[in-house]
Amino acid sequence: MSGAREVAARPVAVDAMGGDDAPEALVAGAVASVRAGLPVLLIGDQTVLRPLIPRGVDLPIVHTEDAVGMDDPAVSVRRRPESSLRLAMQEVASGRACAAVSCGHTGAALVAAVLDLGVLPGVERPAVATVLPRSDGGQLVLTDAGANVDCRPEQLASFAMLGAALAESLGVEEPRVGLLSNGTEPGKGNMQVRATLPLLEALPLDVVGNVEPPAAFRGDCDVLVCDGFAGNIMLKSVEGAADTVLRLLREELKGHRSAQLGAWLLQRALRGLRGKVAWEAIGGGLLLGVEGVLVIGHGRSNAEAVAAAIALAHTSAEGGLVESLRARLG
Amino acid sequence: MSGAREVAARPVAVDAMGGDDAPEALVAGAVASVRAGLPVLLIGDQTVLRPLIPRGVDLPIVHTEDAVGMDDPAVSVRRRPESSLRLAMQEVASGRACAAVSCGHTGAALVAAVLDLGVLPGVERPAVATVLPRSDGGQLVLTDAGANVDCRPEQLASFAMLGAALAESLGVEEPRVGLLSNGTEPGKGNMQVRATLPLLEALPLDVVGNVEPPAAFRGDCDVLVCDGFAGNIMLKSVEGAADTVLRLLREELKGHRSAQLGAWLLQRALRGLRGKVAWEAIGGGLLLGVEGVLVIGHGRSNAEAVAAAIALAHTSAEGGLVESLRARLG
Repeated sequence: MSGAREVAARPVAVDAMGGDDAPEALVAGAVASVRAGLPVLLIGDQTVLRPLIPRGVDLPIVHTEDAVGMDDPAVSVRRRPESSLRLAMQEVASGRACAAVSCGHTGAALVAAVLDLGVLPGVERPAVATVLPRSDGGQLVLTDAGANVDCRPEQLASFAMLGAALAESLGVEEPRVGLLSNGTEPGKGNMQVRATLPLLEALPLDVVGNVEPPAAFRGDCDVLVCDGFAGNIMLKSVEGAADTVLRLLREELKGHRSAQLGAWLLQRALRGLRGKVAWEAIGGGLLLGVEGVLVIGHGRSNAEAVAAAIALAHTSAEGGLVESLRARLG
Repeated sequence: MSGAREVAARPVAVDAMGGDDAPEALVAGAVASVRAGLPVLLIGDQTVLRPLIPRGVDLPIVHTEDAVGMDDPAVSVRRRPESSLRLAMQEVASGRACAAVSCGHTGAALVAAVLDLGVLPGVERPAVATVLPRSDGGQLVLTDAGANVDCRPEQLASFAMLGAALAESLGVEEPRVGLLSNGTEPGKGNMQVRATLPLLEALPLDVVGNVEPPAAFRGDCDVLVCDGFAGNIMLKSVEGAADTVLRLLREELKGHRSAQLGAWLLQRALRGLRGKVAWEAIGGGLLLGVEGVLVIGHGRSNAEAVAAAIALAHTSAEGGLVESLRARLG
């Protein structure tokens, strides 16, 4: 495991200038990560960043003044090799950083990753994967989670390989791969699903067939394959439903005479829950199929979400994500 | 409101023989409804049903010995006019019942509804709608929720009209209609979404544009239009996520020293929550576009879910669902 130890020593490069609450949320998340023992490298304007770093926290900065805005066209990053986003990718490409995190413009991050990291041999289009908590305590890799909204069955088959490699790098041996569908029987699903299932079954993977979302959450598969439209709908439905349940539950507790105690208990339980599942990080994801580890965080990421994204970046790099991908695809 | 009063006096016809836990769950749900003041008519084998009805409960039975099984081909109901499913539809067609409930074979229920109730003029294909609780206290009509997995944009436009009529019959004036998408800007979504939005905007409806699931749950629209694949994925993701949140929360409360009190409070809150949102009924839905009210319950429905389905059937009939549909389509 000398490789893993070597990875653990290298920092995660964080584009400190991208995101709705940049740079404050990015720096705060990075500080929390450093304090938890994960090395981080900030990329951005040092005159802005330096004052945000508490004394005694070891958080080096790669200085640059250019930052990609949320409203800039994605392709504009092609002409901006000195932007904090591009420099973060270059830190990974050069091997100085083990992974990168961006919470800024998603399209721009995709373009920058393809430019500076390059696409792995055998990958047609990179996919975004999100890791969701399952009720059996396991993790569910959902891919594609939003990058490719219109897909051919062949693309879905390549997402299956990418997702399986991610599950392996997260420690799952022989990941079980399911195809997102509205019914489990082989004839179920829309035309795309029916055309994709035979392709998946021809791959060197443990394919369990069509899987519905509740079964996936219960642990029927480790990887759930879908196009980016269905995947994003699933992801955002989960976000909306979790939020609705918690809101209604809070309101319900308010109605009881033991209100204050109930609210207090619920608050504590929610904090614990959050620690386990990092809801804040849902909506972000890992870019699969490029020559490096990139976590694309939610634009709305707060410090907690940034720290979760850094942890995911680190775990994936340490688990040998790119090596798993290369082995799977080779 | 003499029309509504007249509807209220007519029973809901329940196919007592269809469903995983039939006939017990169906009869128990019907009994609860009758006790709550909603008249019900059971359709099925009286030798089996009669012993399940407590003394003093006014629950008439239309006797028949034929029942459609979960493994029977959907089209087989064409040749079985005496099946409990077909007889339930005929009670609605004749006007003796105000609505029907089936928790059995969904495909068979669709075929039976088209045969015995008939399709409303102007409807190409009936759609299934599910009514979900929103966190702002309102209701979200999701359509199509699973009946039509591959749709042309024109079909989605017709679902918008059907969904708006349902929202009106549930008491929403000028329902706001959204198109399910993975992003709100007009250029977002997959090819189907981009082709559908202009068609929706040409309809005599209050169209709010593309809507993501979390915004729909917060109350940005009253009707959410989608194909049956995406709709079913959304529905089942909500089911899976709600279940996961509650399981993890229960576990989290267990870990605290104040465990028993916490668990007790959570149990109470969950009971209250269930009363509000009828999670058990999610997965079922209303069939829109036929000449009568049919609620298709979940195959796994328990007594509580059956009672919720009966209540939804009654509310929709009383609210003039079919008349709203006819007015919208005319």
